[in-house]
Amino acid sequence: MLGLMQDQPLLISGLIEFAARHHHDGQIVSRRVEGDLHRYTYRDAARRSRQVAGAIDKLGLAFSDRVATLAWNGYRHLELYFGITGSGRVVHTINPRLAPDQIAWIANHAEDQVLCFDMTFLPIVKAVWSKCTTVKHWIALCEADALPGDTGIANLQSYEAWIGRESDRYDWPQFDEKSAAALCYTSGTTGNPKGALYSHRSTILHAYGGALPDALNLSARDSILPVVPMFHVNAWGIPYSAAMTGAKLVFPGAALDGKSVYELLEAERVTMAAGVPTVWLALLNHMAEHKLRFSTLTRTVIGGSACPPAMIRAFKDQYGVTVLHAWGMTEMSPLGTVCNLKGQQQALPPEAQMDVLVKQGRAVFGVEMRIVDPEGKELPWDGKVSGDLHVKGPWIISSYFKGEGGDPLIDGWFPTGDVAAIDPDGFLQITDRSKDVIKSGGEWISSIDVENIAMAHPGVAMAACIAVPHPKWDERPLLVVMRKPGSNATREEILAHFEGKVAKWQVPDDVVFVDAIPLGATGKMQKNKLRDQFRAHKLPTS
Amino acid sequence: MLGLMQDQPLLISGLIEFAARHHHDGQIVSRRVEGDLHRYTYRDAARRSRQVAGAIDKLGLAFSDRVATLAWNGYRHLELYFGITGSGRVVHTINPRLAPDQIAWIANHAEDQVLCFDMTFLPIVKAVWSKCTTVKHWIALCEADALPGDTGIANLQSYEAWIGRESDRYDWPQFDEKSAAALCYTSGTTGNPKGALYSHRSTILHAYGGALPDALNLSARDSILPVVPMFHVNAWGIPYSAAMTGAKLVFPGAALDGKSVYELLEAERVTMAAGVPTVWLALLNHMAEHKLRFSTLTRTVIGGSACPPAMIRAFKDQYGVTVLHAWGMTEMSPLGTVCNLKGQQQALPPEAQMDVLVKQGRAVFGVEMRIVDPEGKELPWDGKVSGDLHVKGPWIISSYFKGEGGDPLIDGWFPTGDVAAIDPDGFLQITDRSKDVIKSGGEWISSIDVENIAMAHPGVAMAACIAVPHPKWDERPLLVVMRKPGSNATREEILAHFEGKVAKWQVPDDVVFVDAIPLGATGKMQKNKLRDQFRAHKLPTS
Repeated sequence: MLGLMQDQPLLISGLIEFAARHHHDGQIVSRRVEGDLHRYTYRDAARRSRQVAGAIDKLGLAFSDRVATLAWNGYRHLELYFGITGSGRVVHTINPRLAPDQIAWIANHAEDQVLCFDMTFLPIVKAVWSKCTTVKHWIALCEADALPGDTGIANLQSYEAWIGRESDRYDWPQFDEKSAAALCYTSGTTGNPKGALYSHRSTILHAYGGALPDALNLSARDSILPVVPMFHVNAWGIPYSAAMTGAKLVFPGAALDGKSVYELLEAERVTMAAGVPTVWLALLNHMAEHKLRFSTLTRTVIGGSACPPAMIRAFKDQYGVTVLHAWGMTEMSPLGTVCNLKGQQQALPPEAQMDVLVKQGRAVFGVEMRIVDPEGKELPWDGKVSGDLHVKGPWIISSYFKGEGGDPLIDGWFPTGDVAAIDPDGFLQITDRSKDVIKSGGEWISSIDVENIAMAHPGVAMAACIAVPHPKWDERPLLVVMRKPGSNATREEILAHFEGKVAKWQVPDDVVFVDAIPLGATGKMQKNKLRDQFRAHKLPTS
Repeated sequence: MLGLMQDQPLLISGLIEFAARHHHDGQIVSRRVEGDLHRYTYRDAARRSRQVAGAIDKLGLAFSDRVATLAWNGYRHLELYFGITGSGRVVHTINPRLAPDQIAWIANHAEDQVLCFDMTFLPIVKAVWSKCTTVKHWIALCEADALPGDTGIANLQSYEAWIGRESDRYDWPQFDEKSAAALCYTSGTTGNPKGALYSHRSTILHAYGGALPDALNLSARDSILPVVPMFHVNAWGIPYSAAMTGAKLVFPGAALDGKSVYELLEAERVTMAAGVPTVWLALLNHMAEHKLRFSTLTRTVIGGSACPPAMIRAFKDQYGVTVLHAWGMTEMSPLGTVCNLKGQQQALPPEAQMDVLVKQGRAVFGVEMRIVDPEGKELPWDGKVSGDLHVKGPWIISSYFKGEGGDPLIDGWFPTGDVAAIDPDGFLQITDRSKDVIKSGGEWISSIDVENIAMAHPGVAMAACIAVPHPKWDERPLLVVMRKPGSNATREEILAHFEGKVAKWQVPDDVVFVDAIPLGATGKMQKNKLRDQFRAHKLPTS
């Protein structure tokens, strides 16, 4: 027997209409590519999202056709999020940091019909447009009079002209909530990129989960700055959770340097910011250099990579800002865990709390976790033993777009590729990526543990620990260090810094200094490049 | 095209298993009928919920068969919530404050197969068991040795013996998330009671919505005391939202007097309590009398009836506790709106904030609202004009159990029977129940407005404003007053109290004093009884 509840599908169009009706004057502030600040409301965003939907209809796109974006965080990108999905099409966010050939490959694989791009990315579009065989319409996110005339790009028009012809009234279609809504490719280190195809249902459930007090804790009293890009996993779902709760949105556009981010945080009275560690490093450096303080920021969510404990301490001790460590993946929409203390942990002394806060946190309801040994046997949650992390839930993929890579699931669980321990309170700690673990004489060394210690050295700006082949131990750790400006930290000083912090056999065998550590399109260190570069490095121990 | 997300149904069993895994030592404290405090954890609750599920299987019940409860808020009731629904059956919570004949009528209408009752209600069960023709098993919520031997009730056994025979391991079945999960009858003032039949899907979505920061704001740092009964609309969904978030649960059992509630709030470090105004009145009176303070309580959710502004002020000004005004209905699972300030309202002076806080609040995402005039035309959200309130959403009923009362929807909207205004910020203010409005000479007088003014008089404990027939004006307001102990407030003093607060024609024509105002099974004033009692009252103006 079924319950007698209204049969209303969970659709993304419901989010923007809810925001327009209940938070009509809720603010959305965007730093534009042009440098100025654009300011409008949820009601305006809804009107223009409806215009986007109408404009897509006019192009004659079929249900579930893909419309791509190549854009910064900003109000037009937000309108595309809602207009494309609400009209029944799929918003395909492309990471502009990928190489042009990869972008063309992805657009072709997704069979994008339309591609909307910020003017910053005109050079990319010029380089790829003729290779994108399915794209019939190119939309430049600008005013009509800002459209360059000599691009050679076929069927190019300005966004404002495109949507300006449409009514701001639109009847959002109702359809199966399991319909595809958004597509995002993972930047796999091996093989071709693979697409995660989110549904309306998964997006709404994830928006609920993400807004919960023990997740991102979003309310109509918040002002949120997502540094995490909208071109990558829906900016952690923040645009959707914000519309659900009426939170103010502050979009940084292309200006992600410490000074620009700081000024925006202050001017727009931001209470919560979210991003990857590398951006926060730039912010903290800028603040330290200019002796600045935060006026309104209370918390910052850090994810995308494990956050160095030193950074958590710096935010808390120097600026009174709580770092919420988070963990997720493109395949998980992306939220898996967020690190918020439990009731009894609030009474712990600061150092004991820090032991909790350095972990990736607790699962949001909707995400189930398990750790397993190499034979697939489930391991206990004792906070010590680590194993392959598997996840399950309604906002986690069942397979990749077009079935690429075959069936990824193991007994219904998605293997994350992370190695992790889980403590009895359910706090997850990522030990390493499976492929980054250093296998030394039958024992495993966590590259993350080594990097965290190195990053706490005052002369180290960034550090990567990688495996280098070793004749006796199979692999041994090599530490690749980018010094802070002005630092002369030596190999010996840095190695001495490990004393007493880890077992001797876990200390790197050598340190090399580099001017820059290569970062991937989502800001993560590209250790595979470093492994290639230092594969032949002669360790003093070998 | 469908998204490629895992096809995992939203089931209630997922909540208790999540709590057991992620909050295994999260506490559940219950004041038992015996008077003592029982204390255990979510892990224990999950184990015993599985035993309940196993025990129900053994009875041979079919999928969706109803299992009734007649019980206070407590741990065994919680286990029944999860065990019954998780096993695929429907938990039918019966309000023990109904008359025995009504209880028998409801049990027969629901075709309950099993009925579980607290020992407090043994007299009711003795009175009705032979009339409940579908109930095959009676379960007394007690130890085996506490079971009275001389009841005459057929197939009576103790809960502990019943579940004690079962394993605490159980494979929860997976099924359609739209399956029926819980049944609750409304205590309609006319006609037979009608059942709202909740689904697993609606329950999970409601649990997400209810836990949001702008709703009940539940986290693993909270200790929650639901005074609102589990026998009525799932205690506002709190047991489910608590399991979702790992919040500590504190159940008051039968002891709802001011002293007992106060002691439990303090002893269990409760941060949030939820209930109807009448319970809080008793609590505030007890505290004023003994000059007590709260140590940990930060907020209290008040719903079920409009909360008098005087009570909101008393909590805030005297005790520093924020009252969250909430509104909902049995037909809405029940949450519709909660009154939390928006960002810009936080800067308002206290009196202007109070103007917001006396309203019923903003819709939780998942609830759509509209107000319409008698012709069904939608009215503006200007905070002034009021009309019939309609609602829509995935946790609102489409029809009543067994189709009783026909199709209640109007163009897909559920008519609440409330008259309300909505302001531009989306804050709902219930003006009245449609049937309680006083229609005086073509103008409407809100009975709630009149009562709120009367309740602010220092000598008034409770007040009800009802319509009395009038030869010239059709209806005129009569104020029925229950004085505070020791008060000698007169008719003239109370009427003088209205001066300058409302238009002269809105002042009641007369005041009558009573020893008690009749309350319904859910603690609401039964104005229909007062209308019957005072139908022939001779107004001085007629």
